[in-house]
Amino acid sequence: MGKNLLRLKDLPLAGIEGILDQAQRFCDGEKCQEFAGKIVCNLFFEPSTRTLYSFQVAQQNLGLKVISFNPESSSLQKAESFYDTVKTFDSFGIDLLVIRHRRNEYYNEFISKLGTPVLNGGDGTGQHPTQSLVDMLTIRQEFGHLDGLSIAIIGDVAHSRVAHTNFEVMERFGMRVYTSGPPEYVEKGMNPIPFKQALTECDVIMALRIQRERHETNFSMSAEEYHRTYGLTAQNVTLMKKNAIIMHPAPVNRNVEIADELVESPRSRIFKQMQNGVFVRMAVIKYALGED
Amino acid sequence: MGKNLLRLKDLPLAGIEGILDQAQRFCDGEKCQEFAGKIVCNLFFEPSTRTLYSFQVAQQNLGLKVISFNPESSSLQKAESFYDTVKTFDSFGIDLLVIRHRRNEYYNEFISKLGTPVLNGGDGTGQHPTQSLVDMLTIRQEFGHLDGLSIAIIGDVAHSRVAHTNFEVMERFGMRVYTSGPPEYVEKGMNPIPFKQALTECDVIMALRIQRERHETNFSMSAEEYHRTYGLTAQNVTLMKKNAIIMHPAPVNRNVEIADELVESPRSRIFKQMQNGVFVRMAVIKYALGED
Amino acid sequence: MGKNLLRLKDLPLAGIEGILDQAQRFCDGEKCQEFAGKIVCNLFFEPSTRTLYSFQVAQQNLGLKVISFNPESSSLQKAESFYDTVKTFDSFGIDLLVIRHRRNEYYNEFISKLGTPVLNGGDGTGQHPTQSLVDMLTIRQEFGHLDGLSIAIIGDVAHSRVAHTNFEVMERFGMRVYTSGPPEYVEKGMNPIPFKQALTECDVIMALRIQRERHETNFSMSAEEYHRTYGLTAQNVTLMKKNAIIMHPAPVNRNVEIADELVESPRSRIFKQMQNGVFVRMAVIKYALGED
Repeated sequence: MGKNLLRLKDLPLAGIEGILDQAQRFCDGEKCQEFAGKIVCNLFFEPSTRTLYSFQVAQQNLGLKVISFNPESSSLQKAESFYDTVKTFDSFGIDLLVIRHRRNEYYNEFISKLGTPVLNGGDGTGQHPTQSLVDMLTIRQEFGHLDGLSIAIIGDVAHSRVAHTNFEVMERFGMRVYTSGPPEYVEKGMNPIPFKQALTECDVIMALRIQRERHETNFSMSAEEYHRTYGLTAQNVTLMKKNAIIMHPAPVNRNVEIADELVESPRSRIFKQMQNGVFVRMAVIKYALGED
Repeated sequence: MGKNLLRLKDLPLAGIEGILDQAQRFCDGEKCQEFAGKIVCNLFFEPSTRTLYSFQVAQQNLGLKVISFNPESSSLQKAESFYDTVKTFDSFGIDLLVIRHRRNEYYNEFISKLGTPVLNGGDGTGQHPTQSLVDMLTIRQEFGHLDGLSIAIIGDVAHSRVAHTNFEVMERFGMRVYTSGPPEYVEKGMNPIPFKQALTECDVIMALRIQRERHETNFSMSAEEYHRTYGLTAQNVTLMKKNAIIMHPAPVNRNVEIADELVESPRSRIFKQMQNGVFVRMAVIKYALGED
Repeated sequence: MGKNLLRLKDLPLAGIEGILDQAQRFCDGEKCQEFAGKIVCNLFFEPSTRTLYSFQVAQQNLGLKVISFNPESSSLQKAESFYDTVKTFDSFGIDLLVIRHRRNEYYNEFISKLGTPVLNGGDGTGQHPTQSLVDMLTIRQEFGHLDGLSIAIIGDVAHSRVAHTNFEVMERFGMRVYTSGPPEYVEKGMNPIPFKQALTECDVIMALRIQRERHETNFSMSAEEYHRTYGLTAQNVTLMKKNAIIMHPAPVNRNVEIADELVESPRSRIFKQMQNGVFVRMAVIKYALGED
């Protein structure tokens, strides 16, 4: 009946490596029509460009039939609950659900009652498993391995499901994971280090967007001040190690967390991450629909 | 050139039974690729979850190519009329249109001028033929027949196209159809009975949502008062006949027309209805695209 | 790697005629599955009914896999730029992009950096190449040729990408192109003539909608006054030449630029244009994806 993928911490390292290896084979040109004709519904209750559409490209590449739910013109407008919406799609007898929702661990309220496997496309500030797989695949392609490398995640760490998921899973793979950013958005347990130290010492610098839509109190720093204090600039990237790379889960606010001219510079893997997004999501779908 | 399905009253009983029989065969596992590759457009001018997406699953199951219109980003924003929008899709040379609109009998203004067959996905407070077919299929699966059974439709009967369509078609099939609810929303000609009598005597209790979006004057009763007066509760369902079932076209307002704990209780066929929605809509599409 | 189609002026006449000939063959029933399975994304940043959905029908007719971007639920809501959105889709490794945007020549900022071919679905008040192809196909079907014919484009010429594209390309094909309308919306270099002269002398009268959404200052004329002054009416169409036809890119504001009763009258080719929209867009996709 398929398998869920809600959190990477539910998978053993070998399981994660298996997905990454499959994603790399898709990147290298492998085709797969084993699941052609299966029906998937994408239920995104939060805005998305990369995750939603790279999932759709992945689904089309695999020959799946794709239905995409539009909350704006759904019965959510008639006060139907999130739970009932998901259960409705479950009752349709489809093969796979991909869900994004603003609530952390949204899946707890229904996952034991569903017959349809669920892939987590992001839950609140909690987890974003496919993005972490994208990040690890991109780092592996760059350095050939994960263990022993160091990464600094810079910015609004507290509200970032990417940061939370990466922190956990990359440590399991033997990476040293640090964070840096405005004091109110850096969490004690996540190895905070000064921004300049991060820049000079780490193999990967991952900048994050300030997620104002998740803030309960206004962030006082202006975009200019943020850029001067925690932004990647043409000046400060010269401090980076010779082979160190820049990553970002995007969307990027150019000239805030990263200078415009750096986004497509030789050190940046930002669009490479997006490209890998398709391969990772193909691999994750194959995982969910495949045999145990 | 295909056939319209706008109102069940345009079909003889044998025609309706034929659709229900086909839906049951789809429920039992029959496949159909006779219409694979045909193009259908879903034109929904009102919000929908169940009808729109179960139509989409049905279309994908049948191998159709699916285009779904988004009114919010269409030329309706540039003051194009509903009529011209439908005629535009008709001019594209596609095979089938599924339409929902807030106006009763919206189809009268264009149906004689279209070359493309139209399935009615709901017109205002008028008709909802596929939902009634879902309801009849669900009742048939439960009791093996329709004639002689009694159903009580509870709540905002006046604004419910489900109630209007069911009242008419179920009477034709020999069912006794009663209604009950707030006096302002119960129609004289629709066999009103007291709520308690409905509960104790009928084989099927169908609760309806209060459709505030269709009201011209505010409904004065609070949600709590409505629940106490016309809601299905753990207490009052004990009055129901031994084999009587609970139905609801959904979306459900839990703890208003029905207690939360009853929605997925053994008496409830609410998610079963949703499941049947896919099979009924497959059968209706086969009807529309098939030979006379 | 495919070819862009951004402006008709980038194509030689023979290239345009080739596309029109192919569109005519599709109109005559030719099928093409040469590109079946390729993935196209429609990125429409402005509302559209005809262009977006006739592109979708064309794509389905050709067996393409279709992904349609919804700006309202995308990362544009998190301040992502248009440029980064387009580059994101480019990074997905898809086969074709169809883009509409409110900015004139929006494509200049990214076109040299993309690997994916782009079809222009309309840029601001600039160009609308597929609509002009539709118009020329419709005129060719009517008169058998383009050269020597005269067309008058009536109304809000200044804000019309249809007018700008048609003016240029139809002159290249030997047509005489005139314009007429409110003085503030007629451009000097575009052969303005009095409305009555247009009506009596031209083979094609193409009415345009007043595009209030593109105006920087309010248009002072009421709908009634506009209709009396520049509208096509049952009275004034009697002035038209015997075989002259009425066209309109739509959406039509009935009883403003054209009387309601004329929209589907024998002189009107308005819905014929929409029908041709599918064949033209099939031909344009074949052009973009085909060999040089």
